[in-house]
Amino acid sequence: MKEPSTASSTAPEQAGLDILTQLTWNADGLIPAVAQQHDTGEVLMMAWMNRESLLETLRSQRVCYWSRSRRQLWRKGETSGQIQKLVELRIDCDGDTLLLQVDQTGPACHTGRRSCFYRALREDGLEEISAPLIDPARLYPQ
Amino acid sequence: MKEPSTASSTAPEQAGLDILTQLTWNADGLIPAVAQQHDTGEVLMMAWMNRESLLETLRSQRVCYWSRSRRQLWRKGETSGQIQKLVELRIDCDGDTLLLQVDQTGPACHTGRRSCFYRALREDGLEEISAPLIDPARLYPQ
Repeated sequence: MKEPSTASSTAPEQAGLDILTQLTWNADGLIPAVAQQHDTGEVLMMAWMNRESLLETLRSQRVCYWSRSRRQLWRKGETSGQIQKLVELRIDCDGDTLLLQVDQTGPACHTGRRSCFYRALREDGLEEISAPLIDPARLYPQ
Repeated sequence: MKEPSTASSTAPEQAGLDILTQLTWNADGLIPAVAQQHDTGEVLMMAWMNRESLLETLRSQRVCYWSRSRRQLWRKGETSGQIQKLVELRIDCDGDTLLLQVDQTGPACHTGRRSCFYRALREDGLEEISAPLIDPARLYPQ
């Protein structure tokens, strides 16, 4: 990973470099990040970041995760167009979880739903509590 | 872990046993759980559950996590009195994260703040965006 030099960093990037040292990363160098729509409070998804994806997020002000399955940066919305603009980054008391206040374009979920948390446990099992906004086939054309 | 027998389970417990098989647990047998105040939308905290703590949560309808540091069940509020009543349990699209809709008594954070996410990144570093509701010395008397 090539980090921007301190001399040429903008203030948000410098703050990002500073925060790297205050976070607790797991054994794989990752930290969980919860994305919440900044104005409605909807919890949209949870994914993971490494240092590089966090710096990329702060640089671009668009949320970039680390894809554990693909082992590469995951610029949210790069394929689907459903981007997450970063509104504010918060950290928890022990510095091992991020809360991203975002402005989500359309659905956050690959199923086309606004939120990935679209199933709730009822007495007789899981129930779908929201429907797709967009057919997922339109989000990820072949 | 002693699981309740199917024959004597209530409906929520049976649904809980069923859900165990639909979740993706990490290598340590844990799953991250995000707690959100059900009516205001505040994201309060993120912690971890194992199978036993999830079943205990469903049985008691009060949130019980797994403490990774103490390696034991962590019945939220057992010491401080600041309990989390479970309102609804949601799971995400790939079944590897829980979203708990809760009714939190007082502060969720051990610092006495309502939410653990009380620091936001600004251009010049982290800023505290909320103050303690209660002196933490009163939450955890010696």
